[in-house]
Amino acid sequence: MLRIPYEELERTVADAFRKLGFADERALRCARLFAQTTCDGVYTHGMNRFPRLVRMIRAGRIDIHAVPELVASQGALERWDGKRGVGNLNAQHAMGRAIEIAGRHGIGAVALAYTNHWMRAGSYGWQAAEAGCIGMCWTNTLPNMPPWGSSETRLGNNPIVFAVPRPPAHVVFDMAMSQFSYGALGAYRERGEQLPVDGGFDTAGRLTRDPAAIEESQRVLPVGYWKGAGLALMLDMIAAILSGGLATHQIPVEPEREVGVSQIFLAINSGAFGPRSAATEMADQIVASAGSHYPGQRAFELRAENRKLGVPVEEAVWREVREIAGF
Amino acid sequence: MLRIPYEELERTVADAFRKLGFADERALRCARLFAQTTCDGVYTHGMNRFPRLVRMIRAGRIDIHAVPELVASQGALERWDGKRGVGNLNAQHAMGRAIEIAGRHGIGAVALAYTNHWMRAGSYGWQAAEAGCIGMCWTNTLPNMPPWGSSETRLGNNPIVFAVPRPPAHVVFDMAMSQFSYGALGAYRERGEQLPVDGGFDTAGRLTRDPAAIEESQRVLPVGYWKGAGLALMLDMIAAILSGGLATHQIPVEPEREVGVSQIFLAINSGAFGPRSAATEMADQIVASAGSHYPGQRAFELRAENRKLGVPVEEAVWREVREIAGF
Repeated sequence: MLRIPYEELERTVADAFRKLGFADERALRCARLFAQTTCDGVYTHGMNRFPRLVRMIRAGRIDIHAVPELVASQGALERWDGKRGVGNLNAQHAMGRAIEIAGRHGIGAVALAYTNHWMRAGSYGWQAAEAGCIGMCWTNTLPNMPPWGSSETRLGNNPIVFAVPRPPAHVVFDMAMSQFSYGALGAYRERGEQLPVDGGFDTAGRLTRDPAAIEESQRVLPVGYWKGAGLALMLDMIAAILSGGLATHQIPVEPEREVGVSQIFLAINSGAFGPRSAATEMADQIVASAGSHYPGQRAFELRAENRKLGVPVEEAVWREVREIAGF
Repeated sequence: MLRIPYEELERTVADAFRKLGFADERALRCARLFAQTTCDGVYTHGMNRFPRLVRMIRAGRIDIHAVPELVASQGALERWDGKRGVGNLNAQHAMGRAIEIAGRHGIGAVALAYTNHWMRAGSYGWQAAEAGCIGMCWTNTLPNMPPWGSSETRLGNNPIVFAVPRPPAHVVFDMAMSQFSYGALGAYRERGEQLPVDGGFDTAGRLTRDPAAIEESQRVLPVGYWKGAGLALMLDMIAAILSGGLATHQIPVEPEREVGVSQIFLAINSGAFGPRSAATEMADQIVASAGSHYPGQRAFELRAENRKLGVPVEEAVWREVREIAGF
């Protein structure tokens, strides 16, 4: 694992995106999202996703020039078409729009169809919180999780995010509906570790903590068993209905062909009823009363550490970025 | 267990509420919420809660005459004060208001402070769906669940609801952040059954399926371990900040003193971008594709059955209702 200075990472990734044909400003925004995610310690959804994104762009599955387009609106609710563009740029655009609407209407809602994998879900929670908004967003995914009691992967693990502004250490909660992501399973397996709790079923249908057995069966456990399965269904339904786009069962099952997902972005003005400092104080009190780590704390701490020591990047990934950038 | 004809149940409970001093129309609305919840088979949060509500009214902790009051608004976002009124009437009022706002702005959000236990969370999801709206709502509660890794009950189990209209068999998902509610633990214990999966810790800190051991330790397991604990924290934070009311750590811990909770109600017009039938068709497709029971299905089926056979009510509860009603 290399340690790359943050500025160098962001600059080099932006160069690579430019070489791939991104417009200047979009290359920089996309690079920043990748660099920040990695700097925050969410390694599974940062630079480690760069090679797959490049493959999907080169295969013509993602349109790097596409910009989301407003399709319809009613007051504080808007429907946008992501036009199969770059997932994290589209998502940032949609949350940005929800924040704008919230400035006028108190709350803003954007449903985004035909978009692509948004990489780190939490990015758009941090974005809302930075703008002084309570944020919520979720996405559907390809079918990768069985309903409770079934062995067929018919549900998405549909990550959801909740964010509360508390500058600069916002509270940002980011959860997929599977107890462990496939990325996390792979990481445990590579370290030769068992999961801390049951994470799915083996091919014989027994609950297990063995990550490799779950990767083999593809039967990840929904968070809270039947509960996470039910919640995944609801999130898919709301995203597909409001966006007018695809539901999980309509999305191709192969990860590199997972295109055209549906997403929801909500922003609520935390200063609608008084000074934003009141919201921050209440958030402080609740964090203190729980007496445990709060969601987003680890990202905030790792961000400072990785800014100081350099951002950890896999050697092979860094080599690929530099090659594309033309070094 | 008795089987009371639905109309008789609703009428008798309404009589009891009138005798307790409720205004006519409010007595009927409150009785209907109790009767419908029980008729839908959610026995833990229907008539079985009637005796506690009566005790809390008689102890002066709930004001049966209080009507929610608009405190502040910005566009599609409103803050209301529940004035320590009857929880289910207040919640129905708040969701009704969110639905009204959604009719004008596409989405409506109501934050409700100083309200009381709303009984069945799902009631307000059914309400939104009946009005053609996608609904979301949640409440905080007294501290009744430990953060992950702690033995102290500092979090609420903060139920959340998602609803999608699909007349008449709406899709309504209702989940507390504990894997099992205390009501469910009691029911398993009384039937002499173990839980189907781990539901909490015993007093020695071991994960267990024994409901009595968890009732003793009060250490219920959050849904998805650290995930449900994090989500509970977020829901509490958003409810307390937007309503300007109390957070879980400020709510008295004894169930019969649990007053002044904070709640959020969101409604989204499912017909904002086209005919409502398109939303229904997509919901149908998703339900079919999952190939499993869908959230709300059991309530819909039990509703028909209990309307036909009579609504199951505990004998002691029925006796109390009739006594108060003056029979």
